[in-house]
Amino acid sequence: MDRNKEFDLGTGRVEALADGIFAFSMTLLVLAIDIPEKIPKADANQALLQHLINLTPQLLVYTMAFIVLGSFWMGHQKHFQCIKRVDGTLLWNNILGLMFVALLPFTTNLAGDYGDYQMGILPMEINLLLLGMFFYGEWSYIISHPELLKKEIDAWTATRGKEKNATIIVVSMIAIGLSFFIPAWSTTLYISIPFIHMSGRYRSPK
Amino acid sequence: MDRNKEFDLGTGRVEALADGIFAFSMTLLVLAIDIPEKIPKADANQALLQHLINLTPQLLVYTMAFIVLGSFWMGHQKHFQCIKRVDGTLLWNNILGLMFVALLPFTTNLAGDYGDYQMGILPMEINLLLLGMFFYGEWSYIISHPELLKKEIDAWTATRGKEKNATIIVVSMIAIGLSFFIPAWSTTLYISIPFIHMSGRYRSPK
Amino acid sequence: MDRNKEFDLGTGRVEALADGIFAFSMTLLVLAIDIPEKIPKADANQALLQHLINLTPQLLVYTMAFIVLGSFWMGHQKHFQCIKRVDGTLLWNNILGLMFVALLPFTTNLAGDYGDYQMGILPMEINLLLLGMFFYGEWSYIISHPELLKKEIDAWTATRGKEKNATIIVVSMIAIGLSFFIPAWSTTLYISIPFIHMSGRYRSPK
Amino acid sequence: MDRNKEFDLGTGRVEALADGIFAFSMTLLVLAIDIPEKIPKADANQALLQHLINLTPQLLVYTMAFIVLGSFWMGHQKHFQCIKRVDGTLLWNNILGLMFVALLPFTTNLAGDYGDYQMGILPMEINLLLLGMFFYGEWSYIISHPELLKKEIDAWTATRGKEKNATIIVVSMIAIGLSFFIPAWSTTLYISIPFIHMSGRYRSPK
Repeated sequence: MDRNKEFDLGTGRVEALADGIFAFSMTLLVLAIDIPEKIPKADANQALLQHLINLTPQLLVYTMAFIVLGSFWMGHQKHFQCIKRVDGTLLWNNILGLMFVALLPFTTNLAGDYGDYQMGILPMEINLLLLGMFFYGEWSYIISHPELLKKEIDAWTATRGKEKNATIIVVSMIAIGLSFFIPAWSTTLYISIPFIHMSGRYRSPK
Repeated sequence: MDRNKEFDLGTGRVEALADGIFAFSMTLLVLAIDIPEKIPKADANQALLQHLINLTPQLLVYTMAFIVLGSFWMGHQKHFQCIKRVDGTLLWNNILGLMFVALLPFTTNLAGDYGDYQMGILPMEINLLLLGMFFYGEWSYIISHPELLKKEIDAWTATRGKEKNATIIVVSMIAIGLSFFIPAWSTTLYISIPFIHMSGRYRSPK
Repeated sequence: MDRNKEFDLGTGRVEALADGIFAFSMTLLVLAIDIPEKIPKADANQALLQHLINLTPQLLVYTMAFIVLGSFWMGHQKHFQCIKRVDGTLLWNNILGLMFVALLPFTTNLAGDYGDYQMGILPMEINLLLLGMFFYGEWSYIISHPELLKKEIDAWTATRGKEKNATIIVVSMIAIGLSFFIPAWSTTLYISIPFIHMSGRYRSPK
Repeated sequence: MDRNKEFDLGTGRVEALADGIFAFSMTLLVLAIDIPEKIPKADANQALLQHLINLTPQLLVYTMAFIVLGSFWMGHQKHFQCIKRVDGTLLWNNILGLMFVALLPFTTNLAGDYGDYQMGILPMEINLLLLGMFFYGEWSYIISHPELLKKEIDAWTATRGKEKNATIIVVSMIAIGLSFFIPAWSTTLYISIPFIHMSGRYRSPK
């Protein structure tokens, strides 16, 4: 038996673990939205309405984080469409990347509660920066290990994947910079992430 | 490589993410049911019985939300049985639809705690309305993009799927209207959703 | 297109949803085990040890519930090994059965906190009774609808599956009866459930 | 029908349940990281920064537990790559092993909160010891039941899997011994687990 071949794994279970962690993290984000404490019966409607209005920043952060995680999931899916098999390095890079996916419900919860303060949103921004860096690393790795790539995927496609994550790193760094001056607004930059992920359609230059 | 073909994805991982988010959201609904605070030993049986009786509205809302999510999951399953492959628009529509699936444990929790007040149940009713609208949009999109459909699925079947979600939208709107007058009873309308999903059996007219 | 055939579904996604709900419910059971409140630094070791000793009933209930859910999952797996395709009735029976799977983390949590009182453990015992009844119903249904069965599965195998769930119903009923006299000990009967599930090995009589 | 063959199961759904429980347990670890209680607006930045600094032990424990669970998941994946089919013993061993996977979010949470006390970290260390023992048992079992093994996997590969888990057991026992003297530092030994899992690459001696 070929010693290298044996350690290389199919992608099926890595994708299953990743889908599970993405799906669960995306669902856990909802715990960041607070249920009001026991409200007295008199004026309950008024108090509930006020509570819902106060939830606006939490709902915005939930929406933003769900869409950003959805974007990264799409990127992960495209990534694994290019990959024929995984080796140990790729597997560990994946597990570490998923660690920052699973951390996002915590940092998002913090940002939902303390969105007006730099220390409330900085953890989420650093979290997203690290996510971008891990996926950038994954694309770089498979570009330098073409034996892991499916034959029909050319290097140009993989390079596009790397470039997109480079853009995400730049966006995250600008957001971190802005957080020193306008913390509450710096997260609006992440609206660009789904568009970055969708852009270019990974098409071959022909 | 065909640039359009490359971006189109198989449906396997979208279904895996959707099954994950549906399964977790359905299981997270249980967190809406309160465990009693530390009850003193004297008369614990009596106090627990009273607590369980007080849980009735939470258990009813749990049952209703579980069955409604189960119905939407069945609709999602049928939807993807018609689809051969997904494009970017369908993928994003799906992720946004799943965002409202994952939000339902929050709005259901609110409805379980404050079911007697319009502001307690309105968020859940709007949530279900938006779910119906997203799935309506999905069916509309694949009807106008027959290249995504499996050949053996005729347009009539897809039109039925669209019509069912139109009915869900109408039911949700009536429930929202009723919530202004009889909030506690307006949710009973959702009992119809499983029957709407089951009706007609998607059969071809021959 | 055959109108009946169209609504019948493969078993893949039903199994995926069931595996998700079983896995998530089994993992959520852990939330029933309490983390100690902030303990002062002096004598922290002693206080933690005392807390861990006090957790014994919660750990026992966790172990019991995990193994019972694992047994039901094994039963579900065997059930679907016999099934070729699902129809609407089977799908709904499944969703309702999974509703009681997802409810178990709540009733188990209650039993862990109030295991000495009948009202603390009765909800869990009724929950397990209903689980047994739903799976009994599923086996009964496929026995009377042999067109859903795989050809290689004879009726004898399916009858064994039904009989096992009948035994679980009887065990649950005895446990409920005992809970009126010895609540804390009535749950020990559930130790028999894994053995019931394992017994007989579903073998054909030849 | 062969009575033995019938009970033996394919590995698909066992892997699905395992992937689900691993994914959820890894994601639930994040709940061990505390969100600060309502912080007053004055000096919120300062208070948040202090809170984040205080979270350091929880973040370290989260990272450690995530990587250790990732290592065990990799071991599980390799284990099932060797297995052609499962029997009842293997299935139950798996369910019991997964019970200790699902328990880790609790013991990790305890270690994150009370990492300076032996009674705070001992439960996690015993948990990991038991995990190592169950996986050791699984490898031992398939070595003595070669009919469950895929033909192309030779006994040497399986023996390596058993040896690795024996090493994990030894590491856990040393950590437990150290916890009597230096509790806060005894967990650092677990850094070796990913390296143990990666080592040797399961290669055949040829």
